[in-house]
Amino acid sequence: MAGANSRDRELRERAAAVIPGGMYGHQSVGLLPDDYPQFFERGEGAHIWDVDGRRYLDFMCAYGPSLFGYAQPEIDAAYVRQLGLGDTLTGPTALMVELAEALTGMVSHADWAIFCKNGTDATTMALTTARAHTRRRTVVRAKGAYHGAAPWCVTRPTGVIESDRAHQILCDYNDVASLEAAVAEAGDDLAAIFAAPFKHDAFVDQAEPDIAYARRARELCDRTGALLVVDEVRAGFRLTRDCSWSRLGVQPDLSSWGKCLANGHPLSALLGADKARKAAASIYVTGSFWYQAAPMAAALQTLRLVRETDYLERITALGGELRAGLDERAKAAGFSLRQSGPEVMPLFLFDDDPDLRKGFCFSSEMLARGVYVHPWHNMFLCAAMTEADIAAALDAAEGAFAALKRQAPELAPVDKLAFLSAGAR
Amino acid sequence: MAGANSRDRELRERAAAVIPGGMYGHQSVGLLPDDYPQFFERGEGAHIWDVDGRRYLDFMCAYGPSLFGYAQPEIDAAYVRQLGLGDTLTGPTALMVELAEALTGMVSHADWAIFCKNGTDATTMALTTARAHTRRRTVVRAKGAYHGAAPWCVTRPTGVIESDRAHQILCDYNDVASLEAAVAEAGDDLAAIFAAPFKHDAFVDQAEPDIAYARRARELCDRTGALLVVDEVRAGFRLTRDCSWSRLGVQPDLSSWGKCLANGHPLSALLGADKARKAAASIYVTGSFWYQAAPMAAALQTLRLVRETDYLERITALGGELRAGLDERAKAAGFSLRQSGPEVMPLFLFDDDPDLRKGFCFSSEMLARGVYVHPWHNMFLCAAMTEADIAAALDAAEGAFAALKRQAPELAPVDKLAFLSAGAR
Repeated sequence: MAGANSRDRELRERAAAVIPGGMYGHQSVGLLPDDYPQFFERGEGAHIWDVDGRRYLDFMCAYGPSLFGYAQPEIDAAYVRQLGLGDTLTGPTALMVELAEALTGMVSHADWAIFCKNGTDATTMALTTARAHTRRRTVVRAKGAYHGAAPWCVTRPTGVIESDRAHQILCDYNDVASLEAAVAEAGDDLAAIFAAPFKHDAFVDQAEPDIAYARRARELCDRTGALLVVDEVRAGFRLTRDCSWSRLGVQPDLSSWGKCLANGHPLSALLGADKARKAAASIYVTGSFWYQAAPMAAALQTLRLVRETDYLERITALGGELRAGLDERAKAAGFSLRQSGPEVMPLFLFDDDPDLRKGFCFSSEMLARGVYVHPWHNMFLCAAMTEADIAAALDAAEGAFAALKRQAPELAPVDKLAFLSAGAR
Repeated sequence: MAGANSRDRELRERAAAVIPGGMYGHQSVGLLPDDYPQFFERGEGAHIWDVDGRRYLDFMCAYGPSLFGYAQPEIDAAYVRQLGLGDTLTGPTALMVELAEALTGMVSHADWAIFCKNGTDATTMALTTARAHTRRRTVVRAKGAYHGAAPWCVTRPTGVIESDRAHQILCDYNDVASLEAAVAEAGDDLAAIFAAPFKHDAFVDQAEPDIAYARRARELCDRTGALLVVDEVRAGFRLTRDCSWSRLGVQPDLSSWGKCLANGHPLSALLGADKARKAAASIYVTGSFWYQAAPMAAALQTLRLVRETDYLERITALGGELRAGLDERAKAAGFSLRQSGPEVMPLFLFDDDPDLRKGFCFSSEMLARGVYVHPWHNMFLCAAMTEADIAAALDAAEGAFAALKRQAPELAPVDKLAFLSAGAR
C-alpha cells in the first residue's frame, strides 16, 4: 500500500498551508476514518475516482446533489449549450420563468419560486419571508435538525453570538407535546415552524415523520397565522416528485430546495404559496450568480427526468435491496445493524457501538473494497445505480463484515469521535 | 416600435405569476426606466442581446462578474473541460488547493482562502471569523455601504428583526472622526471594522477611499485587536491585481471576493491573514456547491489572465476615454455631469437632477442607441471592450444628450423613484 495514497497526502499537505484546518465544512474528512481520501479526480454515473486513481461506488452522491449520476449527459449538455449562449448576464433569461413554471407545476403547495445558490439561502429567505408575512419574530424548529450553515441555524456555532439566534425555540422532532409547548412559549410572536421532511440528523438514527406531528404543525400554523416551512434541501425529489410532506397530506406554505435541483449544478430555490407571495416580494434578496442561466437549463432537464422517468421507483427498490442485503449479511456475520430513514437515503449504525469504532472499521473495509459509505451521515442513492452496483456493494459488505469480525475484539476507540462518548449528544 | 419588445412583455407577464413581484434583487428592472428589458437571450464579449433580439454594449457586465467579457473562450473551455471530469463530487478536487495557492500568491495580505458561492457568504464568514477570533461582538461599518443581502447587512431590511443587526455601529465612510467615534462606542467589544475599497453606494456620488481613513482603520484594529475586513466583492481585480487597499499601503486581515473571480462562474472567497487562520478553522461554514471544481478551473484561467495580460491598464485607459468623452459631449450639449469613482467602475449623475429624471431620460436614449448604462448604480468596464466600443458609446451619448436637450423642459418626475425626493437619502 506504500504510496497508494501519495497524491492525496501531498494535496493535504499543500491544503494545510492555504486552507484553514486543511479543509472545511461537510466535505472535510476530518471526522471520517483516516484512510478516506480527501481529494477526488473524477465522477461518472454512480462512481467517483480519488486523486490516486481508485474508483468507488459512491453512496454519498456529493451529499445529495447527484440524483441522476455524475456527468449525466442530457443535463450537462443542457448546461454547456446554455453556457455558450449566456449564463451570468446583466439580467435573467427566459429559463428563469420556465423553471419557476416547471417547479410550481410539480410541487403542489407552490405558486411561486425564488432562485438562489445555497440551501442556506433558501432557508434564510424562508425565515425572512415568514417574519415579513407575520410581522413577528419567533421561529420553532427541531433540536439537532440541520437547516444550513448561517449564524441563525448552524449546528456548530463558533463565532456566532447570542443575538444571531434570538427568538428561536427548539422542540423535539416528532414529539407533538414538545411542539405544542414550543408554540405556546412563542405566544403571539410565532412567525414560522420549520421542519425537515424526516429526521436526518447526523450521528443518530433517522426517523420518518410522524403524521400526527406533521398535521399538528400545520394546524398550529393555521391557528396562529404563522407559516409552515418544510426544508427539502437534502431530501428533495428522493422521497416523492412533490414536497415530501404531501405524502402525509400536509402542505407547507414555504419549502426550501437545493442540492439535486440541477443534479449538482449550483441552484437552490424557495418555493411558496400565494399566501406568502406579498411578503416574499417585500424582502430584498439577491446574489451575484442567482440569475445564472446555465444551472437553470440543467434544472429543466433534471425536472424533466424527475417527471418522465421511473428513477424514483428504481432507486427506492435498489435501496430496499441494499437494506435487506446488508441486514442479512450483518446477521450472518453476527452483527446487528440499525438501518433507518428512507431506503434512498439510508443510514446504518451498529448496535452496541456508541463511539462508532465498529462503524469506522466497517466503512474503511468497504472503502478498501471500492464502496464509499458514510459511518454517521445519511447516504444517498442515485438513478445511475444498477442492480449490479447493489450486488457489488453487498459482496463488498460480506467481506467487510468478515474483516470487522476479525478485528472487532481489538478495535480501539476512535480518537476523533471522542466527543460522542463525552455525552455531548 | 409596436411589438419591438413583445417577447420581454410576454415573459414579464408569465414571471408575474410565478416569481414574487415579477423579479427580485439587483437584476430586477423595477427601478430602471420602463423601456429597459428585463430578460436577455445571449452575451458575447462586451455585448448582450435582449429577448427581442436587440444588441447592447453592456456597461453593467452582469453587475461586475464579466471582467474578461461574456463567454470568454479560454475561461469557458476550462469550465467545460472540468465539467466532463467532475464538478460537484463527494469531495473537492486538486483545483481547490491550486486556486487557494494562486490567490494567496496574488493577494499580499492573504495566507489562506475559503471558497463559497455568494459574495454574502464571504462577508458573513468574515463577520463570524472576526467574532471567533476576538471573542467579541461589535462590528463597525459605513452607513449605506453594501456588504451583501443577509439579514445582518441587507440595505432594505424588510423581514429582518432587531436582533439580526445587533452589535453593529455605523460610521460615515472616509470620515476619520466618525470612525473613531464608532470605535470608541464599541469600547472593548470591537470585533471588526468593515470597509468597501471605495464608496460605491447606489444613488449618490462615489468616492475614492481617503488614505487617512484607511490607515486609521488599520491602526484602530491594531490597537484594539479587532480585524480589518476589506470587501472586494464588487471591485476585486478592477482597481489592482491585489487587494484594493494595498494601493494605499494598508493590508486588511480579511478580504471578501466574488463576482469576477471566475468571470461569471459561481465562485466567491474569503481570504485571510495567518493571524485569523485559527479562527477561520474554528467556524463551521459550508454549502452544497462550495467544492464545485468547474468554477475553480474557470477561476484559475481568470487569474492567469489577470496576471498575464494588460487588461487592467487597457480598461483603465478606456474608462478614462469614456469619462473625458462624456464630459465633453455633456458640456457641448449644455449639461453638467458629476462622474465619480474609478474609471473602470464609473457612475455619472446629472447636476441639478435630484429625482434622476434627466438620468432616466438619458439612459433610455442610450439604450435606444444600443448602449446599456445604469442611471444610479456604478457601472463596470470589461476587457472585451475596445476603443471602437468606447467611440460607439460616445457617438450614442452625443445623440442621447441632444435628445435629452429636446425633452428636458417637459420631463416629468420619475414616479418609481419618488422615494429619493421624499428625503429617504
